Amino acid sequence: MNSSAIQSAAVRAGIGPEMHRLITDLYPICRSITGEGLRKTLRAVGKLVPLTLREVPTGTQVFDWTVPKEWNIRDAYVMNSRGERVIDFQSSNLHVVNYSVPVRQKMQLAELKAHLFSVPDRPDWIPYRTSYYKESWGFCVSQRQLELMSDDEYEVVIDSTLQPGHLTYGECFLPGDLPDEIIVSTHCCHPSMCNDNLSGIAISTFLAKHLSARPRRYSYRFLFIPGTIGAITWLALNEEKISRIRHGLVLTGLGDGGKLHYKRSRQGHAEIDRAASHVLQHSSYEHQLLDFSPYGYDERQFCSPGINLPVGRLSRSPHGTFPEYHTSADNLGFVGPEKLAESFDACLQILALLERNGTFLNLNPKCEPQLGKRGLYGMVGGSSDAGVKELAMLWVLNLSDGNHPLLDIVERSNLSFDSIRAAAEALQQKGLLRECLESAPPEPAESLERTKS
Amino acid sequence: MNSSAIQSAAVRAGIGPEMHRLITDLYPICRSITGEGLRKTLRAVGKLVPLTLREVPTGTQVFDWTVPKEWNIRDAYVMNSRGERVIDFQSSNLHVVNYSVPVRQKMQLAELKAHLFSVPDRPDWIPYRTSYYKESWGFCVSQRQLELMSDDEYEVVIDSTLQPGHLTYGECFLPGDLPDEIIVSTHCCHPSMCNDNLSGIAISTFLAKHLSARPRRYSYRFLFIPGTIGAITWLALNEEKISRIRHGLVLTGLGDGGKLHYKRSRQGHAEIDRAASHVLQHSSYEHQLLDFSPYGYDERQFCSPGINLPVGRLSRSPHGTFPEYHTSADNLGFVGPEKLAESFDACLQILALLERNGTFLNLNPKCEPQLGKRGLYGMVGGSSDAGVKELAMLWVLNLSDGNHPLLDIVERSNLSFDSIRAAAEALQQKGLLRECLESAPPEPAESLERTKS
Amino acid sequence: MNSSAIQSAAVRAGIGPEMHRLITDLYPICRSITGEGLRKTLRAVGKLVPLTLREVPTGTQVFDWTVPKEWNIRDAYVMNSRGERVIDFQSSNLHVVNYSVPVRQKMQLAELKAHLFSVPDRPDWIPYRTSYYKESWGFCVSQRQLELMSDDEYEVVIDSTLQPGHLTYGECFLPGDLPDEIIVSTHCCHPSMCNDNLSGIAISTFLAKHLSARPRRYSYRFLFIPGTIGAITWLALNEEKISRIRHGLVLTGLGDGGKLHYKRSRQGHAEIDRAASHVLQHSSYEHQLLDFSPYGYDERQFCSPGINLPVGRLSRSPHGTFPEYHTSADNLGFVGPEKLAESFDACLQILALLERNGTFLNLNPKCEPQLGKRGLYGMVGGSSDAGVKELAMLWVLNLSDGNHPLLDIVERSNLSFDSIRAAAEALQQKGLLRECLESAPPEPAESLERTKS
Repeated sequence: MNSSAIQSAAVRAGIGPEMHRLITDLYPICRSITGEGLRKTLRAVGKLVPLTLREVPTGTQVFDWTVPKEWNIRDAYVMNSRGERVIDFQSSNLHVVNYSVPVRQKMQLAELKAHLFSVPDRPDWIPYRTSYYKESWGFCVSQRQLELMSDDEYEVVIDSTLQPGHLTYGECFLPGDLPDEIIVSTHCCHPSMCNDNLSGIAISTFLAKHLSARPRRYSYRFLFIPGTIGAITWLALNEEKISRIRHGLVLTGLGDGGKLHYKRSRQGHAEIDRAASHVLQHSSYEHQLLDFSPYGYDERQFCSPGINLPVGRLSRSPHGTFPEYHTSADNLGFVGPEKLAESFDACLQILALLERNGTFLNLNPKCEPQLGKRGLYGMVGGSSDAGVKELAMLWVLNLSDGNHPLLDIVERSNLSFDSIRAAAEALQQKGLLRECLESAPPEPAESLERTKS
Repeated sequence: MNSSAIQSAAVRAGIGPEMHRLITDLYPICRSITGEGLRKTLRAVGKLVPLTLREVPTGTQVFDWTVPKEWNIRDAYVMNSRGERVIDFQSSNLHVVNYSVPVRQKMQLAELKAHLFSVPDRPDWIPYRTSYYKESWGFCVSQRQLELMSDDEYEVVIDSTLQPGHLTYGECFLPGDLPDEIIVSTHCCHPSMCNDNLSGIAISTFLAKHLSARPRRYSYRFLFIPGTIGAITWLALNEEKISRIRHGLVLTGLGDGGKLHYKRSRQGHAEIDRAASHVLQHSSYEHQLLDFSPYGYDERQFCSPGINLPVGRLSRSPHGTFPEYHTSADNLGFVGPEKLAESFDACLQILALLERNGTFLNLNPKCEPQLGKRGLYGMVGGSSDAGVKELAMLWVLNLSDGNHPLLDIVERSNLSFDSIRAAAEALQQKGLLRECLESAPPEPAESLERTKS
Repeated sequence: MNSSAIQSAAVRAGIGPEMHRLITDLYPICRSITGEGLRKTLRAVGKLVPLTLREVPTGTQVFDWTVPKEWNIRDAYVMNSRGERVIDFQSSNLHVVNYSVPVRQKMQLAELKAHLFSVPDRPDWIPYRTSYYKESWGFCVSQRQLELMSDDEYEVVIDSTLQPGHLTYGECFLPGDLPDEIIVSTHCCHPSMCNDNLSGIAISTFLAKHLSARPRRYSYRFLFIPGTIGAITWLALNEEKISRIRHGLVLTGLGDGGKLHYKRSRQGHAEIDRAASHVLQHSSYEHQLLDFSPYGYDERQFCSPGINLPVGRLSRSPHGTFPEYHTSADNLGFVGPEKLAESFDACLQILALLERNGTFLNLNPKCEPQLGKRGLYGMVGGSSDAGVKELAMLWVLNLSDGNHPLLDIVERSNLSFDSIRAAAEALQQKGLLRECLESAPPEPAESLERTKS
């Protein structure tokens, strides 16, 4: 296993533009928590990485929730008496409240207004609204558009369907040396908005692509799921897999110009939390660490008290802290290739640290082993100080009692992760150290497929 | 149970003057650790709240101590050769060293002086002295009085009795929904001094009166006891009750103008300590938190290593930190109705927080429950932030794994206690939460009465 | 047991000069990790304290190491063609690389230079070099000497022997009331340098001398051993003794003008760490506390993960932080009698604190015992504050639940160690406290002597 390969190519030239291109391709699609837009998005991801699509039937009980009816939409508009489409789904899919039931009706402006949403203080932006769990309908418009609408009789058409079908999600599993898994989860239910959530889809896709071509200690499971209901569905249908998950990241909002924010897991001091914190603190990237809170993205589900997985979240500007959030202003110009590349690099460094953060056992724990006779130590004694390399070896030997992953040793010694890792590898090569391998139960031979694929 | 009722009336108009009136009534009585003055005081309290008086016979062994003889006094004076009472118990009961044995003797000033106590740097104040455990006698005088006494033969009379009798204490027990108890202890052995300890008696009495009229989760036991020997006696004779005590407060010195001081229990981070600290830190009252030390009032006994109850102490200026302490200057003018009301309110808020600080169990711990279908959540998604109410519900659900009382959730979420409590109640009402009830053994059917009452 | 006797004579007048005289006597001897110089040194120590010399044969396996051949040296020089000794072992034993194999050869300067070591930026100082574990030879010279050597043919003679023999170490065992041991370890393998390590030898010797004449709660084991290999040898051959070691100190570099440095054990918060920290923080000596690191002196072995003893290190300037380190400038003028005395005092205070840091059990843990009836408390009550003595007694009683050594009580009460100790002794005398004695297994009747003595 040469897991440092994962890190060495951390920032590949050109990966930022590549990710931005994927975002551009996926931008026009009208996604939702179910339906053809979601499927089309997952199929596009599936062209880049080995992705299994799972279809979960409407009505399936998933913990306290029920998989909803499938929603699809062909067209929608509001037409004035002069036959002009004053609101038109074809110009932006944000114009329709996501999950609107079918409508075909004529009405006066006064009646229509109860179904119109705008952002008064951002007169050019279209807001994003949904109504997944209550059957209703509506249109989202810019404030300027709204103000131009005069008293008139309007023809209101939403050519949608809301019928029994399936909830779709995608899963990219990359087996590693160990059955122990790292999950990377990103939601893919938002229509035409780039930061939330196309940036997450792009980063996840390219991380999976990058890792699939390299040796891996851990197994990786990338989840491309609709928000909330998708995470709940996956957890409910895959409970037997949960005990194998060692670390996890929720990825979202990774393309804007804000600094990187890592939000700790509910556990607060899990290995993923320490790894992310170490990477960010030793990077040149502007960043901030956030404590866990039960509001946010799918970490809410992964960190619910009965699941309680060590899953953190990496974002740039957190949701709700920038005006473009959940509006049409979260567009292609709002996400930058260089910011995407920076986020990609931070993710990769975190994963690489987890890959390399082994726990070792000093096989010669009583007193120091004689490093000199193994060529690991300066031969002429009496000089005034050991080099960093010798010091790193002494630290690794001293703390490798089976209870301290390398990151512990890094933190206590104040040496770099790379020097501690190099020392561990040198000592292991000389037979002085043995790695304590993780011990998750192996994946059952016959994987339970409760969902058609 | 609507325990918030306890809090809602926290500051009742007029309660300060009411408490000051009780202090005024009790002020002239010559109290001690035994005797008629103590009984008279307890009987006055018993007119306001249901109080059981207990009488423990002289000679009763209570742990390392023995209940002393009962002391009573009718009169005492020092009379000069001209027949003038130059020191007179009738003008202040502080003039006699408390527990002085009977004396009737003539002596010269030189001999008398070995029995006189004054405070030289406060020439107008009479000090307070006791001699409970060594048979002796003495008079306390102002420095000015002392200096006026010329060489003369004095008639010295202390018309007291020190004989087998009883130690008296009062107990007001208010049963609640749970057998688990909160004890509130105040000492009542000091003669004519108002802050130490009539303020404690007044606050305890009015707290008991207030609580007796309201629903209670906890059972409450108010102890009105002589200092030190009373606490030891109660603990020695009620060992079987100790395991039911969940929280406790020693109340004393609560009427002066200083800021509120909460002294932590020996445990240091008990629920009472956190509740008191939370209440004071979120109040507008000037306050200070003190670590436990084994010197002070009856917390010394409740927090001895073999008892180790979570009992803190609430005072205003701590004993010994103000010049009026244990002198005649601790008089009716030294305690203010508004300070008494403030102290009363702080006590009540602490008790109300304990009443409402339940521990709950999320009955749907795997992923979030669907709040929307229960009418607990905004129906149209996509808006940029959840309100405090939703956030409070998410925090309560996330941390209610049976190990976190609401105060934990308050501290971690940085939301107000009231909003967290309201969220818990809403969730409980919808069947999403179950309260984990305390589990102290119930009070034995036949209460052991080792003392006559 | 009157262990305060240990402390009372902490700074004896004249002990600094006495220790400096021992250093002066030992200074000329050419020590190494084996051989006659080491034996001669130990014999000199043995004249002052009861010292057992142990001889471990060459080839003995000690954990990962092997006891090396014994090295001895009679003479060594480099002679120019004019018959002048330009480098002469007789003028300083530092001139020869310690453990140099025998040489008798003529060579040109160019060839010789590969075997010469100097310190260019300190032109007058001779460096100290060793080659214990790789057979080689060399000379150490001042930069000035080196620059004077012209192209010439030189006669190079090292009249040494490197042959099967023994490794010698010295052990001074002082039995105490308890089988539990404190070890004090100092290395004695350095040739003519005074701070490193003659100061350690002198302090250890005089500590042993001081303690041998006084009652002791603990048993003491003073080890005089060659660095690294000596500690490893002792641990490998005395594994059965390790479980009896409760505390330990490595002593070295204690005569220079720098401030005192205590380096914590690997455990970090062991009793020795807290005792040393307490003593230094309450002394008037300039000092600094250092966290454990696996580089340094023999604490490396005592604190290896498979040994993990609570052994700290006391030094003045740490190794490698002063230019004189490991050069001829670490001479008799570099160590001062008053600094040695100060270091001695600090050691003695640390040991005295360990001696006196008992753990007690309050035999009357329910409520306070009645101190007054035992003459331990002021008799006339009501005065405004208890004295320090009473307060110390209350703290000792309150925390003596068998889990808190006196140092815990000192730290929590913020009173002095002496007042807390005095309170414990007074309470013990009155039968209110019982000491919880340590419980190490007794020394086996027949001590295993794997080495000849």
